[in-house]
Amino acid sequence: MEERDCLIALSLLTEPGDHTVATALAETTPGDVLEQLLSGGHDSSTSVVARERLGRRRPVDLVEEAVTDAAAGDARMVTRADAEWPNRLDDLSELFDESDTFTGTPLCLWIRGVADLRRLTEQSVALIGARACSSYGAHAATELSHGLADRGWTVISGGAFGIDAAAHRGALNGGGSTVCVLAGGIDHVYPAEHAELFERISHTGALVSEWPPGQTPRRYRFLVRNRVIAALGLGTVVVEAGLRSGSRQTARVAAELDRTVMIVPGPITSRSSVGVHQLARGPAPVRVVTRAGEIVEDLSPIGELCEPPPGSTTRPTDRLSPEAGRVLDSVPIRSASTAARIAAQAGVPMVDADRILARLVSAGFVEVDDGRFQLSRHRPRADQPSPDPGGP
Amino acid sequence: MEERDCLIALSLLTEPGDHTVATALAETTPGDVLEQLLSGGHDSSTSVVARERLGRRRPVDLVEEAVTDAAAGDARMVTRADAEWPNRLDDLSELFDESDTFTGTPLCLWIRGVADLRRLTEQSVALIGARACSSYGAHAATELSHGLADRGWTVISGGAFGIDAAAHRGALNGGGSTVCVLAGGIDHVYPAEHAELFERISHTGALVSEWPPGQTPRRYRFLVRNRVIAALGLGTVVVEAGLRSGSRQTARVAAELDRTVMIVPGPITSRSSVGVHQLARGPAPVRVVTRAGEIVEDLSPIGELCEPPPGSTTRPTDRLSPEAGRVLDSVPIRSASTAARIAAQAGVPMVDADRILARLVSAGFVEVDDGRFQLSRHRPRADQPSPDPGGP
Repeated sequence: MEERDCLIALSLLTEPGDHTVATALAETTPGDVLEQLLSGGHDSSTSVVARERLGRRRPVDLVEEAVTDAAAGDARMVTRADAEWPNRLDDLSELFDESDTFTGTPLCLWIRGVADLRRLTEQSVALIGARACSSYGAHAATELSHGLADRGWTVISGGAFGIDAAAHRGALNGGGSTVCVLAGGIDHVYPAEHAELFERISHTGALVSEWPPGQTPRRYRFLVRNRVIAALGLGTVVVEAGLRSGSRQTARVAAELDRTVMIVPGPITSRSSVGVHQLARGPAPVRVVTRAGEIVEDLSPIGELCEPPPGSTTRPTDRLSPEAGRVLDSVPIRSASTAARIAAQAGVPMVDADRILARLVSAGFVEVDDGRFQLSRHRPRADQPSPDPGGP
Repeated sequence: MEERDCLIALSLLTEPGDHTVATALAETTPGDVLEQLLSGGHDSSTSVVARERLGRRRPVDLVEEAVTDAAAGDARMVTRADAEWPNRLDDLSELFDESDTFTGTPLCLWIRGVADLRRLTEQSVALIGARACSSYGAHAATELSHGLADRGWTVISGGAFGIDAAAHRGALNGGGSTVCVLAGGIDHVYPAEHAELFERISHTGALVSEWPPGQTPRRYRFLVRNRVIAALGLGTVVVEAGLRSGSRQTARVAAELDRTVMIVPGPITSRSSVGVHQLARGPAPVRVVTRAGEIVEDLSPIGELCEPPPGSTTRPTDRLSPEAGRVLDSVPIRSASTAARIAAQAGVPMVDADRILARLVSAGFVEVDDGRFQLSRHRPRADQPSPDPGGP
């Protein structure tokens, strides 16, 4: 059998994320690994399961059947031997430390959707979070995802209730494509309420799974699936997460893979944000993001993309020297005052105060009447005054 | 005149934060600096202002008058020559880069309050933020400050409306002491609505100002004052801040002084949190804090203090092996299933599945009836289930 067929056979006979398979594949070819597992001599539990799953069939029949089923189900299979394979997934072969229950590069992805997964994920970011999210979290995920789609970025998520669904919907409504990585076969719509959403996703993006059709999602499969979400994107944004959330595990894997981990902050009074705030406290470095532009900025080569924060207008007074600013601050607003008193308040010599006051008058900040100065009622103002100027 | 009197005279004749004074004091004694400023040969604006302020009086008379006034006003003066001087303020002499409009160690502090400022600030943290805060921000500041007081920490703030007031009140209500650093003379209650609050503060803590009585707060004085808030504490916590907030300037100074800068996150939809989230994006490193315990943790030597996050209970299933976890996840909840089917779903050899199922039954997780397995309705649960277990 060719490498591709061996990978498909392995993925049909073993559980994704299996340590034994990942370790063997780091040493030898998929064909050899398949032979090792099916030979009677090998007695690891992975090998026992593979033989139980194969039964009396031949691997090649298993593969043929799967290919036929996939085609019938409007799906395709993509392995590392295919052009559509996103190279970024190969980083998962490095995921070998003891804390990882699940490891390894996926053997085969079942994909449904019009878009090429490799091209789709070239400029992509994972946006994930709690299923039991707050309306704040859903709103934040939708806005960010919409903004990312606007900027031509693909949003990757897990298709779950809550933040995941908001992320997919925001991307679709923003006219973008989105990738949904599932924890069961792509024929199995879970949750069932997302049938229409998954259909919409497949029209411009892709539904992706490591599990063959017919497999149902299980709790541990979500954890296995999460490493694929973390690996596919350039970074991972966590919008809301409880203390023991699967999203935090995804973020940990993303950090291990040297992806940028970002969190969307929330109120400290919200249980739904406890997990993201914990993430922000380390140990891995985490970026705080509040707008799609910041996500793009954090994922782009330094200095390439940097949008000014909204509302950051300059004020007319920004152009004043510190001394002139002190003089202006010392000009009364309701009554007029002499240059001498203003100079004393500002801690500026009188000769300088005279000169500065003359300039403030000609710039329209200050009015003068009979040698007494007062703030102009029509003085220049910023377009958007800040709510907190830092002093009265 | 003694060093102390020279410092008092300098502080009466020059504006706090003055670059010329700070630079001169780095080179020579307060007495020499005073002489330089008052000698006709020096024509810096600082010198001109000092001579204007002094008029025809002698420096020694000015000092005597100030000491008498302070005593009459129930206040005291503290300079670096006094035992009550908080040594941490000396770090401000290092604040000399060009971006600092205001610099230098305070020359003299006017203090009203029963507590010794040095001892009061030994274990202290600045808690500051927007005047135009949200109710969320005020609540967060009050809670954190209360918690800090509970743990024996002094809260330093600026006595303004909004976050500052909430910080002071939280500390007082928590039975703690608080320090209020003002931007005008301590005889000048600003804002006037805080007369009672300032009175309460003076009963267990201290009101502090670099300005002599009679001086009124001015916009630029708040910026000068902010460096003292940043220097007095071991760190600075910003609760809410607009984009152009004075609190962000305080945080920048704190970072320059190698103090720990912390932010309290808020909703990304709130204008009041824009400034803190910007701070969290750098360039200086910033810690995200959500509880008083985390603030104490971030200010304490590594490993000395670490409280577990609330709600971080372990679950009975945490003790299961990954394989047993997968078996448990594959046991149906509503209908019973055979060991063979459960083993196939879990990807575990049948011989292992049998053994694991037997153990799950004896631990109370699973019920068995006529060789078919089902999740126990009375299975062990955690005290506090998380809202987001990361999978169905």
